[in-house]
Amino acid sequence: MADKSKVRAILDKVKASGRDSLTAPEGKEICDAYGIAVPQEGVCSSAADASKLASSMGFPVVMKIVSPDILHKTEAGGVIVGVKSAEEAAAAYDKIIANAKNYKADANIVGVQVQQMIKGGLEVIVGAITDDSFGKLVAFGLGGVLVEVLKDVTFRLAPATSEDAASMLDGIQAAEMLKGVRGGDPVNREALQKIIVGVSQLVSDFPEISELDLNPVFASRDSAIAADVRIVLNFDQKPARFRPDEKDVVISMNRIMKPKAVAVIGASNEAGKIGNSVMKNLINGGYKGKIYPINPKDAEVMGVKAYKSVKDVEDEIDTAVFAVPAKFVASALKECGEKKIAGAILIPSGFGETGNIEGQEELQRIGREYNIRLMGPNIYGFYYTPSNLCATFCTAYDLKGSTALSSQSGGIGMAIIGFSRSAKMGVSAIVGLGNKSDIDEDDLLLFFEQDDNTKVIAQHAEDLKDGRAFAEVAKRVSKKKPVIMLKAGRTSMGAAAAASHTGAVAGTDKIYDDVLRQSGVIRAKSLRQMLELSRGVPILPTPKGENVVIITGAGGSGVLLSDACVDNGLKLLKPMPDDLDAAFRKFIPPFGAAGNPVDITGGEPPITYVNTVKLGLEDDRIHALILGYWHTIVTPPMVFARNMVAIVNEMKALGKVKPVVASLAGDVEVEEAAQYLYENGIPAYAYSTELPVEVLGAKYQWARAAGLL
Amino acid sequence: MADKSKVRAILDKVKASGRDSLTAPEGKEICDAYGIAVPQEGVCSSAADASKLASSMGFPVVMKIVSPDILHKTEAGGVIVGVKSAEEAAAAYDKIIANAKNYKADANIVGVQVQQMIKGGLEVIVGAITDDSFGKLVAFGLGGVLVEVLKDVTFRLAPATSEDAASMLDGIQAAEMLKGVRGGDPVNREALQKIIVGVSQLVSDFPEISELDLNPVFASRDSAIAADVRIVLNFDQKPARFRPDEKDVVISMNRIMKPKAVAVIGASNEAGKIGNSVMKNLINGGYKGKIYPINPKDAEVMGVKAYKSVKDVEDEIDTAVFAVPAKFVASALKECGEKKIAGAILIPSGFGETGNIEGQEELQRIGREYNIRLMGPNIYGFYYTPSNLCATFCTAYDLKGSTALSSQSGGIGMAIIGFSRSAKMGVSAIVGLGNKSDIDEDDLLLFFEQDDNTKVIAQHAEDLKDGRAFAEVAKRVSKKKPVIMLKAGRTSMGAAAAASHTGAVAGTDKIYDDVLRQSGVIRAKSLRQMLELSRGVPILPTPKGENVVIITGAGGSGVLLSDACVDNGLKLLKPMPDDLDAAFRKFIPPFGAAGNPVDITGGEPPITYVNTVKLGLEDDRIHALILGYWHTIVTPPMVFARNMVAIVNEMKALGKVKPVVASLAGDVEVEEAAQYLYENGIPAYAYSTELPVEVLGAKYQWARAAGLL
Repeated sequence: MADKSKVRAILDKVKASGRDSLTAPEGKEICDAYGIAVPQEGVCSSAADASKLASSMGFPVVMKIVSPDILHKTEAGGVIVGVKSAEEAAAAYDKIIANAKNYKADANIVGVQVQQMIKGGLEVIVGAITDDSFGKLVAFGLGGVLVEVLKDVTFRLAPATSEDAASMLDGIQAAEMLKGVRGGDPVNREALQKIIVGVSQLVSDFPEISELDLNPVFASRDSAIAADVRIVLNFDQKPARFRPDEKDVVISMNRIMKPKAVAVIGASNEAGKIGNSVMKNLINGGYKGKIYPINPKDAEVMGVKAYKSVKDVEDEIDTAVFAVPAKFVASALKECGEKKIAGAILIPSGFGETGNIEGQEELQRIGREYNIRLMGPNIYGFYYTPSNLCATFCTAYDLKGSTALSSQSGGIGMAIIGFSRSAKMGVSAIVGLGNKSDIDEDDLLLFFEQDDNTKVIAQHAEDLKDGRAFAEVAKRVSKKKPVIMLKAGRTSMGAAAAASHTGAVAGTDKIYDDVLRQSGVIRAKSLRQMLELSRGVPILPTPKGENVVIITGAGGSGVLLSDACVDNGLKLLKPMPDDLDAAFRKFIPPFGAAGNPVDITGGEPPITYVNTVKLGLEDDRIHALILGYWHTIVTPPMVFARNMVAIVNEMKALGKVKPVVASLAGDVEVEEAAQYLYENGIPAYAYSTELPVEVLGAKYQWARAAGLL
Repeated sequence: MADKSKVRAILDKVKASGRDSLTAPEGKEICDAYGIAVPQEGVCSSAADASKLASSMGFPVVMKIVSPDILHKTEAGGVIVGVKSAEEAAAAYDKIIANAKNYKADANIVGVQVQQMIKGGLEVIVGAITDDSFGKLVAFGLGGVLVEVLKDVTFRLAPATSEDAASMLDGIQAAEMLKGVRGGDPVNREALQKIIVGVSQLVSDFPEISELDLNPVFASRDSAIAADVRIVLNFDQKPARFRPDEKDVVISMNRIMKPKAVAVIGASNEAGKIGNSVMKNLINGGYKGKIYPINPKDAEVMGVKAYKSVKDVEDEIDTAVFAVPAKFVASALKECGEKKIAGAILIPSGFGETGNIEGQEELQRIGREYNIRLMGPNIYGFYYTPSNLCATFCTAYDLKGSTALSSQSGGIGMAIIGFSRSAKMGVSAIVGLGNKSDIDEDDLLLFFEQDDNTKVIAQHAEDLKDGRAFAEVAKRVSKKKPVIMLKAGRTSMGAAAAASHTGAVAGTDKIYDDVLRQSGVIRAKSLRQMLELSRGVPILPTPKGENVVIITGAGGSGVLLSDACVDNGLKLLKPMPDDLDAAFRKFIPPFGAAGNPVDITGGEPPITYVNTVKLGLEDDRIHALILGYWHTIVTPPMVFARNMVAIVNEMKALGKVKPVVASLAGDVEVEEAAQYLYENGIPAYAYSTELPVEVLGAKYQWARAAGLL
């Protein structure tokens, strides 16, 4: 559809003339070439022409000076609005030319533009920007104070699809405005979407367009027309970031994460040394592949034959874990490269994070030269439990599970390990990314995408070196497996702290928020939430529909659980169908409340929980259950827990598989019950009504983004 | 200042004429009487008058029909705006009269109002509403879409002070608009505040004004003028809710909570019965006062002499705990009344919550008749640990502390008990309020205000029966002790659940939010947060200033802690003064980052934590510390914890008392360290960067609201 050659010709002409901005007619031509609706207009070189042209468009018109030398047209007296007749048009022409000459005597005046004035409709803004990490982004917001004061604007990666554009119209706070307010007409959504898609395609096709603003766009019931176009060019393009082929990434990452042989550069017999801790973890962790300690002096390390260099090892080596001071890393890395090792796990610090940028760049050059992938530097290493591999100096971790976690920061990595162990959360992998000189979040996504041991991916990041690459991969991967991200440095203070920490410069948080959502990524609000979602989301089966029902012994929990449903975007089945309501009522006391929540009241025996939950699992109109338990003598915590696990399993055997979460209110015994429930497939929390609902909400968010609902 | 008699006269006239709305001139007169600026205006009864009056005001003017029979003036063709000359004014007069007669032939036409047209400025809205729970509220927002679509409006209890009004101007999302945008002038804040205060005083003085709208108010650099006044009256006033005198409340509540003698109505020897559980809890809980079991048959209960009726007991009884079925409550309550017992703890259910409204009203009548206060019905009872009093059928709780908690719901009460026991959180009291037939949150506030055993008050509520009484008491109490509230039924779904649960009808959540803040109450976002704040806030000393410093071993935690500071309204000391920055740098490695966070880096020994924290406690420019610990072999968790407690205590002995909180990242050993820190005055959390900052943020929020900062 788009006439690329026309745009190419205009941009080449502008470049040749040494300009970095476009004239209004050039802007209009470019819009025309991409089907972006603009007002009728033309350029005149005489008062008579202006009269004629304006009459052909219909009044009112707006008239503007066209001169490459006059950027601030209004200031120069070069704009006259509301021209209402042929006579006024002629007079306006003369006035504008006179004003322009007065403003800048030697200005090159091309003529006067006559433009149809758009009346009525809602003023919106469509724009495009170039972000260091994400590249081209298209933006949408409402004109005036809503964008300027409330920053009510939303972004998507360009090019954006029509669905992306539709989601932008719904994605602003003031979305209701587009549906018509005070009895007004709704705007033409298709026309607006077309403009958004057109802008996003344009800037994607022509990277030299660094900024574009259609402000305002008048959106009415019938049309959306961009009344003003501003385009800024930057012909000085940065070279594209190197991205290895995805297949090559997967091959390398498989060798690194599932190595047949691991070398430890700087393996040591001396307790307390990192090279000693790594050896211990490899051996005691139960790693079954070959281990090659590399040590210039010792003949063996921890009973394993040692070598002076990886080059002395005859067999193939996949992964080299570095445990030597920074100054020795580069030369050892070269040897690894010569040995065709797939990846270097660069535990040592003393590079980018301490200001040693050159040292880090040297490693990157060696890595690229020898095609060896680098993890780190400045990391704790990584764990891959399916291979019993603890390639780290931290404590060993061996509880197998299906969550793969990574962290940019070592401290956060330690928190992941502690939480996982404490909550008995099985993991498939825990990976430290540190300075991210090479391997980053999207490399991990590519590996975990095809890793059958991993069902959920959770990542802590302070920045994304290549946000676009991440988003593109995440968009595909998140359709298969939930991807959770804790993006630190959300706030300007946090971003400043991130900058002082690893040199990461955080982008505008709103961009992260929008692009992560566009990519199907679940954004965790806090460290603890990332951990809780990592634990709970893989356990839950995928819901088959949106209808959530709360069954609670504690009415008070029911109220808080309902609040939490709204907070987490869950939809309670309401109104409860009459027959279902009657069916629930059969099991509960007359003063209990059916509807939703189903309030079975506090004094009920276990069978009431069982009957109502069974009904909830059986009926196909219900897709997920949230349980609110109230500790009583009649139904003690573990009795409740065992009953719930039994009925959920019984129904599962009959093909009724639904996500169930639970909130437990009671004395300390509820903690054991919660743990039992969790270990048996029901994410459950003591003393919290919000956490179980957050877990269910995340599962729903994923299922929706993956197109499963 | 206000001319009440003038308003009284107008309202009496309106009432006498059987109207419930005011004419524009009446509205203007009322505004004049309360100093609320309105445009110059007058009513004319001829075209000539209109010309003359309009000329005296200056043009343009707007002209409007004045008729008690025409409410929708525009629809009737009764409004002409932009009248620019004396001739136009005369013509407009004739046109309006003709239109009005055409619209409603028999309309009583008073004349045509001529009003100065206000030009320019920002359109804002000032209004007042009458809420069932909070009574008169004044509202403020920006005109147009901001209020209508984004619901960007803020409320305060009327009458509002000038400070309240100022906080309203800052309290809307679009507050920046008032400061001037796109280079425009800021509005005249004093003039706007005067209007807000005036409106709030007016509706407080005249409760029959049920709604008032000044829409729009034109706010400019020089003035704020209400261009349109709408006043709706309701002469059918509900009788004011009975509120006992505060002194009487305190006397009764002291007898109830610290009784010398307790009767148990329905005390039983039969295990499993509520009357048996209550007896066990009283005896085993260590209550030192007298216990009088009331049982129609047994001579003694659990070895204590029993009586057939409280009236058979010779001594004075303060508190009667009810453990009999609903149908026996009323008659027993009467006997308690005759015995002059101060309070009845109505554990039995089967009243309002099951639809037995009459039964509950009967109890209320008896309570009022005999001046006996009622707790419940439909509750678990209460605990008051300073008296070793467990007047409940739930498990006993005896860990003494300074937090007083209450819950409307029994389930939430059990969660409070479980969490408290699990976290070793000492409490002074846990109180169940249930149906709140009498004793409610403000009665508890009055007791805890003067209770030296209580330092913090935390309340779970689904509604406030008398929001105004609560707010008035909370405003005073919160200046002395932090008051935390978890308001359930925040969302419409939650409110619907609350309604089905206890018959509570939730007000608009935004009103709760604003009024709670106005009253100095800290609003908890979730059940777990209420519990965590209850535990942490009383432990922390009150900060003496706003400057917070983060000291962290894990740079990654520093970033997340900085984010959390922004989320919780904390101000990091930035930029760090040069000398202080240099002083910190002396203790940390050259590649560590000073500034704020102070990043001491991960590999440091305990002394680095000690030195930097000591400096943070010593320097008077720093008012609070947030610690980020990273688990390493060099500084194990318990070594860190003991060192931190030691240095904080050492500095405390020197008079350097500052709030310190900690986030611990590491393997499971950090949990023990967190518990140790918490028990020694440093709220600390494993695997969480947000929770410690939430606790510190709540302490700051309280200190600011209490005027201590």
